[in-house]
Amino acid sequence: MSEAKKKKDVKRTVDPACLEVLTKNEAGGIETAFDRYLQQQPQCKFGDTGICCRVCIQGPCRITNKASKGVCGSTAYTIVARNLVRAAAGGASAHSDHGRHIVLALKHLAEGKAPDYKVSDPEKLRRVAAKVGIEVEGKDDITLVKELTDAALEDFSRMTGEDSKWLTVNSTEGRRKKFKDCNIFPSSINGTIVESISQTHMGMDADPVSLIFSALRNGLADYVGMHIATDLSDILFGTPKPVVSEANLGVIDAECVNVAVHGHNPLLSEMIVRAAREMKDEAVKAGAREVKLMGICCTGNEVLMRQGVPIVSNFISQELPMMTGAMDAMVVDVQCIMPGIQAVSECFHTKIITTSPIVKIPGASHIDFTEETALEKAKEVIQLAIDSFKQRSGDIDIPQIKNKVVAGFSLETLYEILGKVNPDKPVKVITDAIAAGELKGVCLFAGCNNLKGVHDENHLTIARELAKNDVLMVATGCAAGGYGKAGLLNGDAVEKYAGEGLKAFIKKLEDANDLAEKLPLIFHMGSCVDNTRAADLYIDMANEMGVDIPKVPFVASAPEAMSEKAISIGSWNVAMGLPVHVGVVPPVQGSTLVDGVARLIAHDVYGGFFIWETDGQKAAEKLLECLDYRNWKNKVHKDTAEKFGTTVAAGW
Amino acid sequence: MSEAKKKKDVKRTVDPACLEVLTKNEAGGIETAFDRYLQQQPQCKFGDTGICCRVCIQGPCRITNKASKGVCGSTAYTIVARNLVRAAAGGASAHSDHGRHIVLALKHLAEGKAPDYKVSDPEKLRRVAAKVGIEVEGKDDITLVKELTDAALEDFSRMTGEDSKWLTVNSTEGRRKKFKDCNIFPSSINGTIVESISQTHMGMDADPVSLIFSALRNGLADYVGMHIATDLSDILFGTPKPVVSEANLGVIDAECVNVAVHGHNPLLSEMIVRAAREMKDEAVKAGAREVKLMGICCTGNEVLMRQGVPIVSNFISQELPMMTGAMDAMVVDVQCIMPGIQAVSECFHTKIITTSPIVKIPGASHIDFTEETALEKAKEVIQLAIDSFKQRSGDIDIPQIKNKVVAGFSLETLYEILGKVNPDKPVKVITDAIAAGELKGVCLFAGCNNLKGVHDENHLTIARELAKNDVLMVATGCAAGGYGKAGLLNGDAVEKYAGEGLKAFIKKLEDANDLAEKLPLIFHMGSCVDNTRAADLYIDMANEMGVDIPKVPFVASAPEAMSEKAISIGSWNVAMGLPVHVGVVPPVQGSTLVDGVARLIAHDVYGGFFIWETDGQKAAEKLLECLDYRNWKNKVHKDTAEKFGTTVAAGW
Repeated sequence: MSEAKKKKDVKRTVDPACLEVLTKNEAGGIETAFDRYLQQQPQCKFGDTGICCRVCIQGPCRITNKASKGVCGSTAYTIVARNLVRAAAGGASAHSDHGRHIVLALKHLAEGKAPDYKVSDPEKLRRVAAKVGIEVEGKDDITLVKELTDAALEDFSRMTGEDSKWLTVNSTEGRRKKFKDCNIFPSSINGTIVESISQTHMGMDADPVSLIFSALRNGLADYVGMHIATDLSDILFGTPKPVVSEANLGVIDAECVNVAVHGHNPLLSEMIVRAAREMKDEAVKAGAREVKLMGICCTGNEVLMRQGVPIVSNFISQELPMMTGAMDAMVVDVQCIMPGIQAVSECFHTKIITTSPIVKIPGASHIDFTEETALEKAKEVIQLAIDSFKQRSGDIDIPQIKNKVVAGFSLETLYEILGKVNPDKPVKVITDAIAAGELKGVCLFAGCNNLKGVHDENHLTIARELAKNDVLMVATGCAAGGYGKAGLLNGDAVEKYAGEGLKAFIKKLEDANDLAEKLPLIFHMGSCVDNTRAADLYIDMANEMGVDIPKVPFVASAPEAMSEKAISIGSWNVAMGLPVHVGVVPPVQGSTLVDGVARLIAHDVYGGFFIWETDGQKAAEKLLECLDYRNWKNKVHKDTAEKFGTTVAAGW
Repeated sequence: MSEAKKKKDVKRTVDPACLEVLTKNEAGGIETAFDRYLQQQPQCKFGDTGICCRVCIQGPCRITNKASKGVCGSTAYTIVARNLVRAAAGGASAHSDHGRHIVLALKHLAEGKAPDYKVSDPEKLRRVAAKVGIEVEGKDDITLVKELTDAALEDFSRMTGEDSKWLTVNSTEGRRKKFKDCNIFPSSINGTIVESISQTHMGMDADPVSLIFSALRNGLADYVGMHIATDLSDILFGTPKPVVSEANLGVIDAECVNVAVHGHNPLLSEMIVRAAREMKDEAVKAGAREVKLMGICCTGNEVLMRQGVPIVSNFISQELPMMTGAMDAMVVDVQCIMPGIQAVSECFHTKIITTSPIVKIPGASHIDFTEETALEKAKEVIQLAIDSFKQRSGDIDIPQIKNKVVAGFSLETLYEILGKVNPDKPVKVITDAIAAGELKGVCLFAGCNNLKGVHDENHLTIARELAKNDVLMVATGCAAGGYGKAGLLNGDAVEKYAGEGLKAFIKKLEDANDLAEKLPLIFHMGSCVDNTRAADLYIDMANEMGVDIPKVPFVASAPEAMSEKAISIGSWNVAMGLPVHVGVVPPVQGSTLVDGVARLIAHDVYGGFFIWETDGQKAAEKLLECLDYRNWKNKVHKDTAEKFGTTVAAGW
């Protein structure tokens, strides 16, 4: 390997544990995403800017100086917008497919067909059911589960055009009107997705605005699927409460049977947790201390939030845990599972176990996971891991790097903590702190890793800068994973990074609560689908402030966005009215028009808009500017209202 | 324009009318698809062979000598298969979206919300309802429509996993078992599509076989959507009966208000036909003889089949009718509408009118077509056309080339004709003719145009060769359009091109029937969705022969495939057990494995398989070989059975 290449490799992560593994591997020659990214350079500029069209087999067509249109006559704006719609539909499909599995599992539970599952949070069951308009009085859990899952399935499947129920009850009045006015209110998730795929078929929509609105409609369909996934996961597995755990490669324990759970859906991983506990004796018999679970990506977040399972890696470094030589099995469910893990596993004794009928990897073991036999299948997985442990042969070298993590901040938990300060209106503790200038606002960090930047660098740079500037931060997904590994999800980080206002705010909460652990710098809200917890927060803030979401000092950032899911999450947050920073430029810059709509025009229509900024420091500045601007405007409107006795202005 | 370029242009169509327009335009410089295709050369080989991945924004990734995997570790087979699944899902989405509109229109009719529509074929309503298991006895039309549309909507939306009803009742017992065994039996259309988009999200399925099966499942979902579209269109607008019309640019009449209907969905165009007739006086007042309608693509086929409206163009030459200077309006609904038509229209007085909320073209007029006010909206369209007629200013130059077309061959109509020979078992007339060696078999021609070949050349070459070899031919879509323009859809063509067997077979039908017109060489079955009529035919042939479809001497060919719909149609025909020729190599050759599965392994599993062959003559030979092989094998099995008293062998 050339010196130049080594240097580049090294520069592609700021995680010291990953750096250690990658550096040691320089001679070893095990190929990871870090290598493959370099091999893919230079990447195609047509695809990268969105002006490559492969919608029909007259193509591929590319917009060039020579050819300003595809064979059919599509211009750059049509091609870019069409690709964007399909990406948003991709994200909505993935999230909603996950949501659908949760709904069906809960439905099967009520039908007696999922014996290993139970209603873990009957209170949330009642709350969610009541919220979507189901009469809860006098009904038992099973009846309510049946009615709730039927209502949820309706939101996936209805064909008759009525509004999505989940979006109706999980938005503000202003947003509902806006979505209707702009004709982006989805009826059903599946209907929205299929129609948009049809809309982007050859010879269909050529109008970029119509297409961009369709991308937003898919975003909102995505929101529905995600919200259902979170709501029903909480009902099934319990609403997260504070947990203490740790993160980074150092959580791998040479003396244990190490099993990584990877993917997104808690249906399997929750059973794995149970199976691992129940099978401790088998592990001991095999010479291990116990079965040690650890998480990657959002399955990791799900079991961290509810079971305290530590995080071993976020997305881009998912191959690295195996390179310690001590990973006995990696069991995967859905999404963000690099096929590359299989080749790496084959250099070690690690067993890769796939479990979903639509996620198979040639060469990996496959256990067909079903709810009917969930625990039994989970035990099969653990048994495979124990067998694999017995076959360990190579050297073990685990970076001794890990950090303490305090997680589990569902909105309910956050409100419980805030409620100790203001029992009547927990959310007012935040809006008051903003009004008083203690906090500048709130930022949601979400999303992936992407080697177009340096692994975890943007996540950390932006968060530290926002912390210094008194921004209350919540995080999900691989952003949260990155923070956990870097030690930002614990109380020490507050001391180290928080500005005076944020410090005071957090101290106020700690003083009012009797907490075993200090509160963290960033509140881990869960997996990707749990971004809806943050939406619930900004909806409550808007209602509390008496404004619509575009006036709430709340921003979102996906510092290292990678997947189609990130595109759809970004889309719904923009439609909801948030400034949304994306740290990797998505393939839209081939059309000035589409790019302009995303960054500028969206603001006029929705109050939300996109910010593309690959530089972490600059991104932080832009996010802070957005918060300053909203605070300034709210103040102007308030002052004006007080002075002239008018109500606050309607525009943004 | 360089001489070389001119020559290439000239070579890109075999249609003399198109050639005339293109040649006259050489100096004029109006840009059409023929020019844009050349501007796009050379096309990207990564996209063309399927090894470009844009599923996530780590990419685009390309498989090269230097990089055998994408950033995530996806290999060529995963990338190619994933792209294929998304293409099949694109086709299924488009067709089913069309089908859904028909279902909803019929449902709204029953609810009194579509006053301009009626049940035109109550007999077919009863037949289809009974077929899908609805008790028809004693029920009126409206009740049946409600029950039938509810059943159809179920096939779009069900979430609980039961088998698609339409596929169940429109397949053979053998196929149903095969689809179940291979786990490709779709439950709902929308569920299948969304799951497959999820399956192809980043970090999901990497297994090419699992992915290819998903493409086939999408194909079958496509079949369901198409079959519903055809069944319910017949109920709404009448099951086609033989009509006489004409085709090619010569149908444009300088003295009339010329209106082209273009797209796929008959909901609007049927109303346009009515409006055009009712508004003759307005046209006369404007100085025209009448409003003359003509069709492009499948909307054209729909109104040709049921109303005798002539065909003016098939897909690739859709811009050319305007270049005669006499096209007053082109009204478009959905699919295969080149955005390029708008720029061409702006060189003339032609008005482009879009009518679907998901098909808009910047610069075009838009009339929001709804079923509630269908006729009124159709009249607005005709009024725009009449206004446009008054604004004619430029020269008019219409190629005087057109051919007689005898069309309208729904399966019902075909069986009525065959039924005069064998009233008990019309289909036996075909299977007997094959058994007797009079016919070699049947070929379905379907699909688009694609400038990767020469416009209409493959369509004509293959059909003429098959005619000579006594193959009974049915056609749909732009294949049928090509045949119509070239004069193959009339009786003269039988004289000119049919082999002795085919000639005798057609004569036998003519002798038994009292027909006003001679039967054509190729039987026009309708639009793209009407490919299901051909499926119904081969299902009946299989049942009549006592074998499953893979033994029926029936082949399909898409000589100039272009759209994702062609990919999904091809997929379901392969799953049904047909050899399917595609005259443009789809983007699969970047993976030997995927290519091999499509061309070879599919045969072992499904009995159907793909043939990629861009040369028309060779394609014809391969199709004939397939028919010969099936006939030979059937004979061997029959002889063996007679000799040894066994039943026919089970394999294929």
